[in-house]
Amino acid sequence: MTRGEMKYEGKAKRVYATENPHEYVVEYKDDATAFNAQKRGSWQGKGATNNAITAHLYPQLEAAGIPTHFIEKLSDREQRVKAVTIVPVEVIVRNTAAGSFSKRLGVEEGTKLSRPVVEYCYKSDELGDPLINTDTALALGWAEEKDLKRIRELALQIRDFLVPYFEKRGVNLIDFKLEFGKLPDGEIVLADEISPDTCRFWDMETNEKMDKDRFRRDLGGIEEAYAEMLRRVTAEG
Amino acid sequence: MTRGEMKYEGKAKRVYATENPHEYVVEYKDDATAFNAQKRGSWQGKGATNNAITAHLYPQLEAAGIPTHFIEKLSDREQRVKAVTIVPVEVIVRNTAAGSFSKRLGVEEGTKLSRPVVEYCYKSDELGDPLINTDTALALGWAEEKDLKRIRELALQIRDFLVPYFEKRGVNLIDFKLEFGKLPDGEIVLADEISPDTCRFWDMETNEKMDKDRFRRDLGGIEEAYAEMLRRVTAEG
Ligand SMILES: Nc1ncnc2c1ncn2[C@@H]1O[C@H](COP(=O)(O)OP(=O)(O)O)[C@@H](O)[C@H]1O
Ligand SMILES: Nc1ncnc2c1ncn2[C@@H]1O[C@H](COP(=O)(O)OP(=O)(O)O)[C@@H](O)[C@H]1O
Ligand SMILES: [Mg+2]
Ligand SMILES: [Mg+2]
Repeated sequence: MTRGEMKYEGKAKRVYATENPHEYVVEYKDDATAFNAQKRGSWQGKGATNNAITAHLYPQLEAAGIPTHFIEKLSDREQRVKAVTIVPVEVIVRNTAAGSFSKRLGVEEGTKLSRPVVEYCYKSDELGDPLINTDTALALGWAEEKDLKRIRELALQIRDFLVPYFEKRGVNLIDFKLEFGKLPDGEIVLADEISPDTCRFWDMETNEKMDKDRFRRDLGGIEEAYAEMLRRVTAEG
Repeated sequence: MTRGEMKYEGKAKRVYATENPHEYVVEYKDDATAFNAQKRGSWQGKGATNNAITAHLYPQLEAAGIPTHFIEKLSDREQRVKAVTIVPVEVIVRNTAAGSFSKRLGVEEGTKLSRPVVEYCYKSDELGDPLINTDTALALGWAEEKDLKRIRELALQIRDFLVPYFEKRGVNLIDFKLEFGKLPDGEIVLADEISPDTCRFWDMETNEKMDKDRFRRDLGGIEEAYAEMLRRVTAEG
């Protein structure tokens, strides 16, 4: 597996072509951004931690029947994945009110939702990933109806896998962001990453935040929190 | 029909109790507000025009099979309606991109949508009527699943009635906002108003705006535009 041309450099990862047109190498960087890249930072070990957490979770999701882009971990920072066409609709699944949801709707952070909420945002750095709904995604040609149905179904299945997975490890999964992609044959698979960058993790005993909110809100202890999350994720259930 | 206690004063209307607990009188004011009441104005005839337009449209919607709160026009500014419990979810139906939708999503005003978009906003002046989706309305207890299904169905039926209605009168219906309410027996009915305050109307020949955007954007000719819309609405089809 040799890394070819860089296809895309994002805020937290780089995507490289390989000699196989159906496969990419994803490299996890130590860079962190927040608030649509207005806040920037970086810490040692972030890339390796997120790579390890994602590489640990995705095979288990596969085993639970959720198709993913993941093939294998290549190194500390790198993983091999199936090349997909990313659906430009980010999917947020919420179990408990927090962050922008709390602010926008005047619902106190930590309020348990009576049922999971699936939100869709148009993936656009320029526009700040605005909230949309499925009608809008369809009307503007960002996704197809059958794909959105499948994405919602998978997002809820992923939630049903992750919530007890983290609960067993003393972590309350508050919310998380997913990206889905399309394989050449049209199959929708989970792409991107699942990590403290893309989830809100609260310690079940102390409610302490163990995710990117420590960076967003300058709470300190960010390296330790990510390292602790890696320990918990890889612990026996 | 004597007006009793004022139950509610909104930005554009007042709602009064009557001797019948199941009926209200709605009084249309000349006041206009925009941008969550940060911009305020008023012009003579506005209340009467919106009252007349709503009073002309609602019976025709009823005849087309859409239950509404409307009972009768009482005077220039007043109408008698069924008292309902308003569902705190505003419904926006869009045929063409404009306004906040265009801005938020970077889609040029006037772009025809390939299919109608139904959006939901939480009715809260304090929060600025934030965009939500049906999951959120359900999770936070703002509406029930069966009611949201019915509301969407009615909203699209109303669109199917209004689009050709206005087209015949030389008006392109760009988008519109609806409010629904619940009768004591649980039936969902169209409430509130349909007027140049709550719709975007563009002249089909000139694309001239004939609605509240003239006020929002200081385009002038607001009284004339509302008067012209009343003429067109009440013209034979
Ligand atoms: N399997 C895949 N195939 C193609 N692109 C992918 C795949 N998985 C993730 N991506 C995309 O690669 C990029 C990952 O880099 P990242 O730094 O997270 O980007 P961003 O700044 O857009 O969040 C994202 O744009 C993501 O959509
Ligand atoms: N049939 C009805 N029964 C009870 N309330 C109604 C009915 N129709 C409309 N309303 C409510 O009356 C108010 C109308 O006044 P308005 O000035 O439009 O208020 P707002 O400032 O909230 O837009 C709105 O809050 C609307 O939801
Ligand atoms: Mg990313
Ligand atoms: Mg109103």
